[in-house]
Amino acid sequence: MLDLPTTPLQQLLRQRLPGHSLPAPFYLSPEVLEADMAHIFGKHWIYVGVEPDVAEAGDVAIFDIGKTSIAVVRDDDGEVRAFHNVCRHRGARLVTDEKTTVGNLVCPYHSWTYNLAGDLIHADHMGPGFKRSCHGLKPVHIRSLEGLLFVCLADEPPVDFDEMARRLGPYIAPHNVRNTKVAFQSDIIEPGNWKLTMENNRECYHCGTNHPELTVPLFAYGFGFSPEEMDEFDRANAERYGCLITKNHAEWEAEGLPSREIDELDTMVTAFRTERLPLDGEGESHTLDTKAACKKLLGDFASAKLGGLSVWTQPNSWHHFLGDHIVTFSVLPLDAERSLLRTKWLVHKDAVEGVDYDLENLTSVWLATNDQDSELVGLCQQGARSPAYEPGPYSPNTEMLVDKFINWYVGRMAEHVGR
Amino acid sequence: MLDLPTTPLQQLLRQRLPGHSLPAPFYLSPEVLEADMAHIFGKHWIYVGVEPDVAEAGDVAIFDIGKTSIAVVRDDDGEVRAFHNVCRHRGARLVTDEKTTVGNLVCPYHSWTYNLAGDLIHADHMGPGFKRSCHGLKPVHIRSLEGLLFVCLADEPPVDFDEMARRLGPYIAPHNVRNTKVAFQSDIIEPGNWKLTMENNRECYHCGTNHPELTVPLFAYGFGFSPEEMDEFDRANAERYGCLITKNHAEWEAEGLPSREIDELDTMVTAFRTERLPLDGEGESHTLDTKAACKKLLGDFASAKLGGLSVWTQPNSWHHFLGDHIVTFSVLPLDAERSLLRTKWLVHKDAVEGVDYDLENLTSVWLATNDQDSELVGLCQQGARSPAYEPGPYSPNTEMLVDKFINWYVGRMAEHVGR
Amino acid sequence: MLDLPTTPLQQLLRQRLPGHSLPAPFYLSPEVLEADMAHIFGKHWIYVGVEPDVAEAGDVAIFDIGKTSIAVVRDDDGEVRAFHNVCRHRGARLVTDEKTTVGNLVCPYHSWTYNLAGDLIHADHMGPGFKRSCHGLKPVHIRSLEGLLFVCLADEPPVDFDEMARRLGPYIAPHNVRNTKVAFQSDIIEPGNWKLTMENNRECYHCGTNHPELTVPLFAYGFGFSPEEMDEFDRANAERYGCLITKNHAEWEAEGLPSREIDELDTMVTAFRTERLPLDGEGESHTLDTKAACKKLLGDFASAKLGGLSVWTQPNSWHHFLGDHIVTFSVLPLDAERSLLRTKWLVHKDAVEGVDYDLENLTSVWLATNDQDSELVGLCQQGARSPAYEPGPYSPNTEMLVDKFINWYVGRMAEHVGR
Ligand code: FES
Ligand code: FES
Ligand code: FES
Ligand SMILES: [Fe+3]
Ligand SMILES: [Fe+3]
Ligand SMILES: [Fe+3]
Repeated sequence: MLDLPTTPLQQLLRQRLPGHSLPAPFYLSPEVLEADMAHIFGKHWIYVGVEPDVAEAGDVAIFDIGKTSIAVVRDDDGEVRAFHNVCRHRGARLVTDEKTTVGNLVCPYHSWTYNLAGDLIHADHMGPGFKRSCHGLKPVHIRSLEGLLFVCLADEPPVDFDEMARRLGPYIAPHNVRNTKVAFQSDIIEPGNWKLTMENNRECYHCGTNHPELTVPLFAYGFGFSPEEMDEFDRANAERYGCLITKNHAEWEAEGLPSREIDELDTMVTAFRTERLPLDGEGESHTLDTKAACKKLLGDFASAKLGGLSVWTQPNSWHHFLGDHIVTFSVLPLDAERSLLRTKWLVHKDAVEGVDYDLENLTSVWLATNDQDSELVGLCQQGARSPAYEPGPYSPNTEMLVDKFINWYVGRMAEHVGR
Repeated sequence: MLDLPTTPLQQLLRQRLPGHSLPAPFYLSPEVLEADMAHIFGKHWIYVGVEPDVAEAGDVAIFDIGKTSIAVVRDDDGEVRAFHNVCRHRGARLVTDEKTTVGNLVCPYHSWTYNLAGDLIHADHMGPGFKRSCHGLKPVHIRSLEGLLFVCLADEPPVDFDEMARRLGPYIAPHNVRNTKVAFQSDIIEPGNWKLTMENNRECYHCGTNHPELTVPLFAYGFGFSPEEMDEFDRANAERYGCLITKNHAEWEAEGLPSREIDELDTMVTAFRTERLPLDGEGESHTLDTKAACKKLLGDFASAKLGGLSVWTQPNSWHHFLGDHIVTFSVLPLDAERSLLRTKWLVHKDAVEGVDYDLENLTSVWLATNDQDSELVGLCQQGARSPAYEPGPYSPNTEMLVDKFINWYVGRMAEHVGR
Repeated sequence: MLDLPTTPLQQLLRQRLPGHSLPAPFYLSPEVLEADMAHIFGKHWIYVGVEPDVAEAGDVAIFDIGKTSIAVVRDDDGEVRAFHNVCRHRGARLVTDEKTTVGNLVCPYHSWTYNLAGDLIHADHMGPGFKRSCHGLKPVHIRSLEGLLFVCLADEPPVDFDEMARRLGPYIAPHNVRNTKVAFQSDIIEPGNWKLTMENNRECYHCGTNHPELTVPLFAYGFGFSPEEMDEFDRANAERYGCLITKNHAEWEAEGLPSREIDELDTMVTAFRTERLPLDGEGESHTLDTKAACKKLLGDFASAKLGGLSVWTQPNSWHHFLGDHIVTFSVLPLDAERSLLRTKWLVHKDAVEGVDYDLENLTSVWLATNDQDSELVGLCQQGARSPAYEPGPYSPNTEMLVDKFINWYVGRMAEHVGR
């Protein structure tokens, strides 16, 4: 082969050492972030929210992916649609509130009016030559995975969303997302590149010393460990934990709850992973007392004792489905060094705050955990800025999923820009 | 012709569709803003303020055009002069207050001292070889159009300022700007590119739904309309409005007040437009009750019932001359996405606040209108950031002046950078 | 010679007029700042703090030079060491507090643990193939000049530090920095390029009109003057001042206090200057009443009447050693247009606040002076932004040291990037 000229990004991709964190520019460079927005966030399915965000006809929710503002609406037929939130006249932002309910979408500037199918149905003073039909809102691809909403900004979205939906759907369906409401939403700005937020989420090596609240309902052996570093006592416990999982999976699946691990984090374009894991203590929920936070259980569940189903998608989400509530996370880059972490807590749509659930009890574990993670992400961002930073090795026992995330990222970038 | 290489800016200029808003980079790109500063704000006559800003000998007013700080002073002979506000020693900013009164201009750093003609008259410790005459302040071109101050940063300013002055002067002169004082100044930062602020000013398509205060004294038919969209009732009203204007113009001109439209918005380098228009209601002023805001009328006026004279200049100003007061606006880019809108309300220099005029009554219409426009400008700026933004069509009936402004802009840029 | 292509920085260096301030990009351009960080702050000895900052074993002090964070520690043998403050695992910032005391350095993310020699002594879950010895902290060169700490980020630091230490050491040693404590530290962000902060420090042309507090204990004739501008009275006074210095130097040196000027500001890579100068009034200290601010004198001094020893180093420090206290300054660029000025006041380590010294009395002169200088630096920064800025002439009588600083800067840059 000829030694063809390559772009700096291609060179950077080639520099990545297997099993190691990324070269610093991937965490720092505005140019790399621009490429991330173009090739990762511009060409993959991006998790943005849930159907309960637009529960009724006329409901509108705005989601921003980088500089792209998207209006997700539920139309009069109950269908969820997505449009670019940009007027076709002089380009004003159409909807400014994050959530609203409308009959039609009316531009605040000169009142051009679009229906919920995106058609321009009214525009004053434009004269006889003007064609309304050429000035409808630009549509955006949107799909619902059992109530989880994913959008794709590409003209031709990855086709393996269908495969993810087919395999993940049965895991999620019993928790009936469409029958929930958003009890609380938290938006925090993490002081780091979005990939550091994702890396942080893809391991629990840091959980023991950093997450006193989160680790209450979790088994430490679930975080990974190095067998050769264990004593006999540890080894026996780890073995017991392995047996517990096998037993739980068999029981849950007998009850119709798919639970076994599926891991496609670096093997599919629309990458995902899932597994249902047992909880410690009362074993009901991600709460400080490990009991259910909401009296009204989700779906048709009779008991909350069904472990915690976790779902991870790439590039930008993770989700925990309990018997009584769901916590769902999306990560959206703001710039090379800041990312929006949006967390939603979903409960049964008929649950009443103060009666069926206490908001502080529902949210305290993950509000605390997010703050702790945000600080850790910030430390890595600060470190990456130093000229002395050098990619370090991932633990082969506790950071395998971090490695898979980075492998996926590097592979997807290489697919689009070459390597 | 050969297909010569062009700069991206030249390509962008060629991309502009007639009758449409600009491609997004014109509203977003720091490089385009730099070119705007070099070729538009660096080579044309820029409206900055009024003679009453430097009413007395020794008065100094500082105006910043981009990174250029200009000291406008009235010298001891009553002449208005302008200098670069930069010390010739080690470059310290000479005058830091926006307005002040001085005998000489003394640098705060090492006390180099310049007289009001800009000559360096004192500099300590510089030794025998030092030539004071080589270190005077650098002058800036400045012209007064009946009291409106325009500066030009170019070595050779556009010569057609004289033509503008000759034709516009008689319209403005009766309002006697030199005999006014600045009753109030408002500086707001609009969250958009300066061209969006100008586009917003060049049409009233948005006024009906956005400016409840401003539209009180204005006739809706003055905003433009599409004849083919009107019913018989509308058509009759529009005709009556047309007759009213013809009649008013004849009357006012008989009284010595030039009133007929002149429009050179895309036909001159020093572009301008003017027209005197009737006011609704009491017809005296731009106030909420349409009555004069100041008891002391301007110039030699015996009555305030003389409509409103509007003057627009390019690149960056507009002005409304009433019988009792003047409102005058300048737009100055701060960066690609933020612009300073400076508004001054002028009244007779002998008018006394609280006696002859109430400041809130004087300023409320335009303070409210500016805030409304600022928000609209922000919506367009947000929209232009979206990759989904696409230049849209101007209304041929209500946005002709927007189109002329953009034509002028594109033409002026092409003149300097090629197309 | 061939007319070889040069980089813009090389061109800029060639544009510098002898005896004049720098072309504007040296004060404004982020690219030049990057070159400054690489070639000046990355390859020279940078003053960062004092041994009393890490008085005891286990003490850690963090110093940031641009994007490089450095942990200075005193190890268990009492030796001062410096490391890059970046974990070798996934690059987290290791120490976040500016000052702390530790047994080992433990990473907050996954608890990798380094001893005070920088060795990685603990890392969980890394598996059998992992080599701890390859993952120690990266060291940074550090030297103590009689208690003043200088670091160098280059692999091979300039060797003439030794010469500076040999010649400056005897001046500083009598003030016994190691036996002091930091009574107060002030960090201010000056709104200007670091070179403007340095230029400001290298002359007292501006002191008379700007520093009412600082000039109390200083003789005006020490600021420099133009002989040909003086009258007979001035000339006589200046002569008396010259005699006073000669007499003082002789007396002080007889007492074992080296005092005579050494000036290597543009003649060495590790550039410095020093001189001991008499003080006016009571002549004891840099205070408003010119008396000692601290009852416990430094070193073995029996009296505070020993003038003020000043030390200047390049690129970034100056220091005033009095009989009773020391004031020491470092300048660190934050970006092209902002610089950190850090000032420390040192007193005898056994001195007790409120008993031996009053903090306000100790710090008031230089706190006021720093604020005054910061404002002046800001004026020059604002001036340099104007396209009308043009390098101006330094006074041959009062700005010789400014010229030497700039000569050194230009020479050092040219050495590394060519000219
Ligand atoms: S920009 Fe939306 S109607 Fe004009
Ligand atoms: S910078 Fe103005 S006198 Fe020195
Ligand atoms: S980043 Fe320091 S231990 Fe993981
Ligand atoms: Fe975490
Ligand atoms: Fe408006
Ligand atoms: Fe000073």
